[in-house]
Amino acid sequence: VEPAARLAREHESPSAVAAEPRLDLEALEREARDRLDPSAYDYYAAGAGDETTLRANLAAWERLRLRPRILRDVSGVSTATTVLGTPIAAPVLVAPMALQRLLHPTGELELRRAGEAAGTLVAISTRSSTPIPEVGAASQAPWWFQVYILRDRGLTEELVRRARDGGAKALLLTGDTPILGGKRRPVEFDVPDEWVMPGLSTPDGMPVRDQSPGNFQDASITFANIVRLADLSGLPVVVKGVLRADDARRCVDAGAAGVVVSNHGGRQLDGAVATAEALPEVVDAVGGSCEVYVDGGIRRGTDVLRALALGARAVLVGRPVAWGLATGGAAGAERVLAGLALELAEALALVGATAPDDVGPDLVRPAVAD
Amino acid sequence: VEPAARLAREHESPSAVAAEPRLDLEALEREARDRLDPSAYDYYAAGAGDETTLRANLAAWERLRLRPRILRDVSGVSTATTVLGTPIAAPVLVAPMALQRLLHPTGELELRRAGEAAGTLVAISTRSSTPIPEVGAASQAPWWFQVYILRDRGLTEELVRRARDGGAKALLLTGDTPILGGKRRPVEFDVPDEWVMPGLSTPDGMPVRDQSPGNFQDASITFANIVRLADLSGLPVVVKGVLRADDARRCVDAGAAGVVVSNHGGRQLDGAVATAEALPEVVDAVGGSCEVYVDGGIRRGTDVLRALALGARAVLVGRPVAWGLATGGAAGAERVLAGLALELAEALALVGATAPDDVGPDLVRPAVAD
Amino acid sequence: VEPAARLAREHESPSAVAAEPRLDLEALEREARDRLDPSAYDYYAAGAGDETTLRANLAAWERLRLRPRILRDVSGVSTATTVLGTPIAAPVLVAPMALQRLLHPTGELELRRAGEAAGTLVAISTRSSTPIPEVGAASQAPWWFQVYILRDRGLTEELVRRARDGGAKALLLTGDTPILGGKRRPVEFDVPDEWVMPGLSTPDGMPVRDQSPGNFQDASITFANIVRLADLSGLPVVVKGVLRADDARRCVDAGAAGVVVSNHGGRQLDGAVATAEALPEVVDAVGGSCEVYVDGGIRRGTDVLRALALGARAVLVGRPVAWGLATGGAAGAERVLAGLALELAEALALVGATAPDDVGPDLVRPAVAD
Amino acid sequence: VEPAARLAREHESPSAVAAEPRLDLEALEREARDRLDPSAYDYYAAGAGDETTLRANLAAWERLRLRPRILRDVSGVSTATTVLGTPIAAPVLVAPMALQRLLHPTGELELRRAGEAAGTLVAISTRSSTPIPEVGAASQAPWWFQVYILRDRGLTEELVRRARDGGAKALLLTGDTPILGGKRRPVEFDVPDEWVMPGLSTPDGMPVRDQSPGNFQDASITFANIVRLADLSGLPVVVKGVLRADDARRCVDAGAAGVVVSNHGGRQLDGAVATAEALPEVVDAVGGSCEVYVDGGIRRGTDVLRALALGARAVLVGRPVAWGLATGGAAGAERVLAGLALELAEALALVGATAPDDVGPDLVRPAVAD
Repeated sequence: VEPAARLAREHESPSAVAAEPRLDLEALEREARDRLDPSAYDYYAAGAGDETTLRANLAAWERLRLRPRILRDVSGVSTATTVLGTPIAAPVLVAPMALQRLLHPTGELELRRAGEAAGTLVAISTRSSTPIPEVGAASQAPWWFQVYILRDRGLTEELVRRARDGGAKALLLTGDTPILGGKRRPVEFDVPDEWVMPGLSTPDGMPVRDQSPGNFQDASITFANIVRLADLSGLPVVVKGVLRADDARRCVDAGAAGVVVSNHGGRQLDGAVATAEALPEVVDAVGGSCEVYVDGGIRRGTDVLRALALGARAVLVGRPVAWGLATGGAAGAERVLAGLALELAEALALVGATAPDDVGPDLVRPAVAD
Repeated sequence: VEPAARLAREHESPSAVAAEPRLDLEALEREARDRLDPSAYDYYAAGAGDETTLRANLAAWERLRLRPRILRDVSGVSTATTVLGTPIAAPVLVAPMALQRLLHPTGELELRRAGEAAGTLVAISTRSSTPIPEVGAASQAPWWFQVYILRDRGLTEELVRRARDGGAKALLLTGDTPILGGKRRPVEFDVPDEWVMPGLSTPDGMPVRDQSPGNFQDASITFANIVRLADLSGLPVVVKGVLRADDARRCVDAGAAGVVVSNHGGRQLDGAVATAEALPEVVDAVGGSCEVYVDGGIRRGTDVLRALALGARAVLVGRPVAWGLATGGAAGAERVLAGLALELAEALALVGATAPDDVGPDLVRPAVAD
Repeated sequence: VEPAARLAREHESPSAVAAEPRLDLEALEREARDRLDPSAYDYYAAGAGDETTLRANLAAWERLRLRPRILRDVSGVSTATTVLGTPIAAPVLVAPMALQRLLHPTGELELRRAGEAAGTLVAISTRSSTPIPEVGAASQAPWWFQVYILRDRGLTEELVRRARDGGAKALLLTGDTPILGGKRRPVEFDVPDEWVMPGLSTPDGMPVRDQSPGNFQDASITFANIVRLADLSGLPVVVKGVLRADDARRCVDAGAAGVVVSNHGGRQLDGAVATAEALPEVVDAVGGSCEVYVDGGIRRGTDVLRALALGARAVLVGRPVAWGLATGGAAGAERVLAGLALELAEALALVGATAPDDVGPDLVRPAVAD
Repeated sequence: VEPAARLAREHESPSAVAAEPRLDLEALEREARDRLDPSAYDYYAAGAGDETTLRANLAAWERLRLRPRILRDVSGVSTATTVLGTPIAAPVLVAPMALQRLLHPTGELELRRAGEAAGTLVAISTRSSTPIPEVGAASQAPWWFQVYILRDRGLTEELVRRARDGGAKALLLTGDTPILGGKRRPVEFDVPDEWVMPGLSTPDGMPVRDQSPGNFQDASITFANIVRLADLSGLPVVVKGVLRADDARRCVDAGAAGVVVSNHGGRQLDGAVATAEALPEVVDAVGGSCEVYVDGGIRRGTDVLRALALGARAVLVGRPVAWGLATGGAAGAERVLAGLALELAEALALVGATAPDDVGPDLVRPAVAD
């Protein structure tokens, strides 16, 4: 379903004075919180430290004022675009999130279906609670595999191979997690044995406990691992967690096909720069050499538009999709994705643009103050 | 009634220590909310999305500090001015608002009378709930007709002709609404058949339902429609919704007689720049080639003064007049308009100015911080 | 009593770990509010309009960060200074306030005594509720007379002559009140006949009602009135209400002996620039040609220090003294004045300065943000 | 115990989804407040005046956004560094605090032990409630002696000699306290005779009451006292309370071995610049001629990192350690110090740095707004 078509439909039938209420992500989060085990909710909702970056991400988008153009012909708006050549219905991807069976009994599988229904691309985590081959087989829609390079390199390589064999279109190498950022919200829950490293446990019947040191991220990885991953998999490598011009250039030099401006949703280094603040320097640094994506605090179609205006090819959305999954499975997640796409279509029309490529830096400027 | 005369009278009779309390628009809004159907209240009060632009409009005026001049002879203050050559008692026009019978049984007719009593100009909406010929006949005072160009161009032309025949002095072409901006406040109410497109329904007995696609705004209109409207009507065309220098210049090039710096009261694109922030670049861009007006968040005579100082010829006020209409009909709306004019007269005197033309950019500067 | 002496005494006797609590002006205001008639309280407390300038005055001082110097010999701090050649114990004057018998049965007389006790100078209002000759005779301490030029010029001249004959050292011409700024707090109280224009009523037995138009401020006065007042009285004229460089220069050109950077305590034009924001341009404009004072939002000795650092010769304080007067008569007002002087002495010591003249612009800088 | 070792241990054993909650200093302060006599709590918690600087210190660190680097090999993070050549496990020193027996029956002795356990350096106050020789003998770990130069110079010299003989590695001359800054929180408690000037009272059996004028700080000291202290003691002298470039240069010229950018935790001059705002100009002014430390508002490992990024060699922490001492003696204080060191190790890893020396100014930038 193309969002622009929904937009057109919506504007043809209802009375002009009774527009349907739109996405209410705060209500959705409250509903998810009521439904989930408190620790599971906190696991997804928490930010590192005092959660200043968690809040800063949201505030930084809002601070960018939009400068709409008027009297353009916007009768034919489309949100369709591509990422690394893969066509998607809207530039809104699903961010990788661990252990989705904490949110829904068939977590990752639901999200693959939601991605297919919404016509977009889902990133599946190394910490998937569903075996990677099952994840791959769940849908013909495109997906990416998020990679943590583990201390046990054999394990890492095995995961990457299974992702490639399962049809992953690209690898999303997370660069900002050499260790886990400390949280204040205590999180206590048992992870069933069968969830643990399921990407490996199912095929060979040998569960690998999370607690095993080999299963931890390796703190020694560097830019050199980008090229090794590409060589190993034959897949394009996108590096996630870039917040600086110099790091972005290093990624390009190491052969990255894309970078994600990200602070891990405020979950790693509290106090890290908001992604909307870091995006411009990264876009400027890569100068078109690779695609640039961004995540963190995207809650509205207008936020997607702001990201595009600052030079992003697409955004990744995490928590809102998690709440949709928790409350309505694949259909719940799809409603969030389709809702954001619809809002983007609407925002495009209202700034006088008909497609993502029609969005330039003149559409935003910083607020004078807040 | 000339506001300056009221000001003089007020300052001649009361004790210096017992100044009358002035306009309290917050109390007026509370009273209107208590009196109206909740959906009707929300329909007027709501902004798009998270209502950030709704709030930003208000904050942006307040952030501009006034730099009063002292020891000027202000014994003869007048707020009188002209818009497109039409004399008005104060540079405070009434913004176009749809379906005013939701606010008062004889909505648009009351506002025409309020405009006459206050000596100012009222803009009547394409979405008027009263037939345009009746609106036109309600008063000899000047009025403007706000135009949405509908998909059914014949219908649009018929409305414009009736407005012209009903004495409209100018057309106010809304440029920022190719589609309706999504709201979060659910609005549900029935619009009686006889209100629907009444501009057409009464004369020819053929009600045109709002739900008819032809009655929707056309998303394909461009700057070329400015000249067509002018040709069709023989009236000056003012374009509403301009927030950028480039768009302002295009309006001038297309023959616009004026532009209104507006974000539709925060009802269309949430996140759009506040009007007080956009006004300077528009004034600079048109360089005197046409008149510039502004609306959005004007709540005090000092806000009108700020707008004049930034180069506006006049302001348009919407919601405060709606609350006056809802609570007191024509007299209630007139009290708001006269109150703002009185406040403007007072503000002029207190900055050492005796007339709108005596107000320049030296009278404002941004606050250091808030 | 010299504040520095009190400071020295205080630091010689008490235990270092049990410093006496200092001035708590918020508690004092609460006490005054509890004790006063609500309208009398509101009359002094209110600001114009939405009271944004009332709040901005306070915030603007706080926003200026102090840059203390260390390791200076501050064993001999003195707050003593002069204004127009008159020695005062500290650069904290009492701002003119109308109708002080609303605060205390012998209002203005108490304040003259408080000024004498605190070693500082009191400005008495044209709207004094005590006859000017009685005010003049109440103390040998220096005082200034605040002048409103009334429509009845004979009345104005008579008041000025009586002030001069009563020993006033200077005239303080209020330039920012051609009309009264509108307030939202309703103020209703009866002013007894014998208070009304008492400066005139007592000597000649002919009360002049406030309601008489002749008793209103004249909205037509200009800079030319400065020289006329000086010629009439033979006294130096200080102009109060200056907020701009150009107006400051005009005052100097017209022979003013000083200017007060003031927005009338936020009581006239709501939205006017905060005085701490306007002070630098005025100081720069007069370039030493006359003394510059400031009022508005001074609540701490550190605020006095900030004003000195920005180039003020002294500050005027209004409401805090009013609350002292309301709660404790002359002694209550003196406690406020002495408390501020003590705080100033302390602040001088803590920035490594021993006297007001030792305070320069390097001691302040704007906060990075708030 | 080396924090990096703890970090490694922590990341090897627990499940990745159940990270231990970290330091919660707000909860610790609440626990301390519940346990302490209210006056004792207020004595430590209070800031001067309206406590604006107390709050500004905290806000100024938070406002600095971190710019993490990714894909660096951080498998071998160490927080170890040196101050004046003394090796310490982490650049987090304990700020001097008076009368620690108000917090714990064996206050200063506990802190010496906490410093030893945490591998860091403790500064002991002239206002110690434990005799200096006992403080010195409590541990072999390094410590500094904080010096107030008292009016009775013989007393001062005796204290300095005893600190030197007790093993103090350096003198920390407090330059910002010629007098005590006034507080609003009333503090009333009795200090037992045996606590009063215990540095002198114990050895010679002659208690010196705090109330004695000779025991007060001398307000006449200047930069010349730096060299005299160094000559008297043979110890390096670090000056605490520097907030300006010019003062920092004077300290260097007078032979200081280090300076502490400090506003005395907001306890002296309310309104003083936040230390994070003053640090850059001081670092720039000394240009490597001496070590620069900073205190005030450091609450997180990320704050330590920000200080290092702005050029500080180490930070000093006061109140959080006081609350640890109050709630758990030496062990409680050590938990705070070790917790901050662990957070710093984590922050280093997350910005791609392996040691304090690997931290440069590129790691921070001001927030766009707050």
